Amino acid sequence: MDLGNDTTALLTDRYELTMLQAALRSGTAGRRAVFEVFARRLPNGRRYGVVAGTGRLLDAVEAFGFDAGTLEFLTGNGIVDEPTAEWLEKYRFSGNVWGYPEGECYFPDSPILTVEGTFAEAVLLETLVLSILNHDCAIASAASRMARAAGDRPLIEMGSRRTHEQAAVAAARAAYVAGFTTTSNLEAGRRYGVPTAGTSAHAFTLLHDSERHAFRAQLDSLGESTTLLVDTYDVERAVRTAVELAGPELGAVRIDSGDLAVVARRVRDQLDELGATGTRIVVTGDLDEYGIAALAATPVDGYGVGTSLVTGSGAPTASLVYKLVARADGPEPDAPMRPVAKRSTGKPSRGGRKSAVRRFDGHGTACAEVVTTGEPQPGVRDRVLQIPLVRDGEVVGREPLAAARERHRAVVDELPPTALQLSQGEPALPTEFVNGGPRR
Amino acid sequence: MDLGNDTTALLTDRYELTMLQAALRSGTAGRRAVFEVFARRLPNGRRYGVVAGTGRLLDAVEAFGFDAGTLEFLTGNGIVDEPTAEWLEKYRFSGNVWGYPEGECYFPDSPILTVEGTFAEAVLLETLVLSILNHDCAIASAASRMARAAGDRPLIEMGSRRTHEQAAVAAARAAYVAGFTTTSNLEAGRRYGVPTAGTSAHAFTLLHDSERHAFRAQLDSLGESTTLLVDTYDVERAVRTAVELAGPELGAVRIDSGDLAVVARRVRDQLDELGATGTRIVVTGDLDEYGIAALAATPVDGYGVGTSLVTGSGAPTASLVYKLVARADGPEPDAPMRPVAKRSTGKPSRGGRKSAVRRFDGHGTACAEVVTTGEPQPGVRDRVLQIPLVRDGEVVGREPLAAARERHRAVVDELPPTALQLSQGEPALPTEFVNGGPRR
Repeated sequence: MDLGNDTTALLTDRYELTMLQAALRSGTAGRRAVFEVFARRLPNGRRYGVVAGTGRLLDAVEAFGFDAGTLEFLTGNGIVDEPTAEWLEKYRFSGNVWGYPEGECYFPDSPILTVEGTFAEAVLLETLVLSILNHDCAIASAASRMARAAGDRPLIEMGSRRTHEQAAVAAARAAYVAGFTTTSNLEAGRRYGVPTAGTSAHAFTLLHDSERHAFRAQLDSLGESTTLLVDTYDVERAVRTAVELAGPELGAVRIDSGDLAVVARRVRDQLDELGATGTRIVVTGDLDEYGIAALAATPVDGYGVGTSLVTGSGAPTASLVYKLVARADGPEPDAPMRPVAKRSTGKPSRGGRKSAVRRFDGHGTACAEVVTTGEPQPGVRDRVLQIPLVRDGEVVGREPLAAARERHRAVVDELPPTALQLSQGEPALPTEFVNGGPRR
Repeated sequence: MDLGNDTTALLTDRYELTMLQAALRSGTAGRRAVFEVFARRLPNGRRYGVVAGTGRLLDAVEAFGFDAGTLEFLTGNGIVDEPTAEWLEKYRFSGNVWGYPEGECYFPDSPILTVEGTFAEAVLLETLVLSILNHDCAIASAASRMARAAGDRPLIEMGSRRTHEQAAVAAARAAYVAGFTTTSNLEAGRRYGVPTAGTSAHAFTLLHDSERHAFRAQLDSLGESTTLLVDTYDVERAVRTAVELAGPELGAVRIDSGDLAVVARRVRDQLDELGATGTRIVVTGDLDEYGIAALAATPVDGYGVGTSLVTGSGAPTASLVYKLVARADGPEPDAPMRPVAKRSTGKPSRGGRKSAVRRFDGHGTACAEVVTTGEPQPGVRDRVLQIPLVRDGEVVGREPLAAARERHRAVVDELPPTALQLSQGEPALPTEFVNGGPRR
């Protein structure tokens, strides 16, 4: 199957290459430039966003290069001229990238990624950087709300079938960072080590001559700790059959339809009456963070979430932008840098390279996102938010996925309680702009 | 970059494999089975859906197999046992697939894909089939509305940065099927031959010492037929500079901000006054089908659409399901087939394999989607909707992408005028169920 994955270089908008060609010709391609990734706002009145995709981005930047076949496509279709193709042939990103570490929270105008290099090398990464971060941050931001709503109950990500087959793998990864427990997606297990889960669908029951035969077959194969799906025909009869066949050691039953609160209570009572007091109840079926929260007081032991997770629960993209905020006046490595910003109606941007700290009060609760133009001067209660990810073209920011997951849990716990509100409102932290010292 | 693309087999929910293992053990794995893909409803009161992704699906089914590394992952992690792994090692889909051809329209309950094989071989394809069709149909369905709203004006797809980097490639392909003219995505050009477009961003203007320098550089590189972006600073001044430098042969100007209707009228007047009567106006910036329609009476010559295209304009997934509708009573190839359906609350499905025809009135306008259980008996004014895609495991339904694009245009033209209404309402065609003859 042709996924064109020898390189990530063509996962790019054509205009990045036409700009490169024009800049090479006009002599501006070598000017040092700083691009920043940020969100102008959080979608749908959310309280915070979640940075995810950083690990994927570092892999993608390493794989960004122009091999012979790629160059032939570009020149053969008149997309770039020969001098540009010669430049591309030698291309490796040799600049610097700083960013919020994966799992960190972000707010409007948080500079979640900063790319510094020549204009030529940094502009080429725009599309790929945004694709990865816009997707993965959107999923993680929705997933984190679901995880907070679920509390200590485990969450299974099962949305693969509702999104692009490769986006599904990234979605499973982002959901895990944000607090999901497992995924149905096997490739996410293989590629990223995300724990996988799943037992059976209605089709399995329908395949057999009776529900009893189907349950028997599943128990024979997966053991009595498995999860039996009990709503293909009649839930009460199915639960009875399930406990009769598996005994009180039955792991769990899954309910995928109906009024989940009502059915879950009824099934809990029935299981308890049958002596299966340790058998868990897993619910699935069009759940989102609101549906999960609504089941908090019911005897549910775990949730499976599909569609709403992979579609970002109403915000399928994080609306992050990649903006040139500073560039040199000339091609020399030490040419002075100048802040730049467009003045388009309704879409102004703030020139100059930024740094950011999270400010804490005396009780260890975060109280502000402080974005500094110029050199940062962090106080004792400030956490500097950007870390080095790529230094002189070398990836230095790789970490295990578990570290991002652990970080996210800790970071959300530091936010003020309003962060956990599912209702629409203001961001949990205000973004404050200050002028730092002159950049060295 | 690890995209795991030697095989598509792990782009699959774990439960497909646990069901396989249990069915192999219980002796039901070899029963003949029929699965159908359909939508219970169209999202957001849309009038029709668009089938897309078929070509990608056929590639993905061909690439579905279990190599040594894949099997090692599955057995090493306790996902399948050794007998199941041995079965998987020999797996190639050997059954039959029929489907609506790519670009065709669909309605609630249209059987857009039918997969027939043993339960074992057909159940394994569920996740991958749904991922591809749910994504691509969602994008194409939104894109078709935008294309109808744009009329004869060209549409540029430019949403790559707002979605997963591989979903972006598929989105560009689906948009092209549904009527978009070009895409910004280079990989869609390389992989599928979709025409690509793009010239420059605000960063290019900001890189240069002045807008004049930037325009000069772009014209030197791309010629006077290029599109200059005129809203970085002051639109009126930019248009004057653009025509001064390029002359009246300037290809186009692009406006990405402000009240597009107002600005486009002003820019048209200015261009005409400057003698650039042939210079086109392209508008971009948060457009969707409604925004496009609202600009119908303005002097706009083309639209670029990003976010709303790749997110399905409010419906990022097509909500297609893959349901077992019939299966054999025993493992023999000639065992009688039995219709099956679950009875879950609120999610009933209709048992038995279906066929479908589109029925036309005497004027060549479509008037009904007729779904037949049993053998179809098409009348003279009926078009049979399913075509063979895979026969005995062999792909037979491949076609050039241009054929799907051409088909879509023709099919939409056959629908009643209500199909073109952007407002929420009933599907453009009613779905009628009839019983056909007994299946041979």
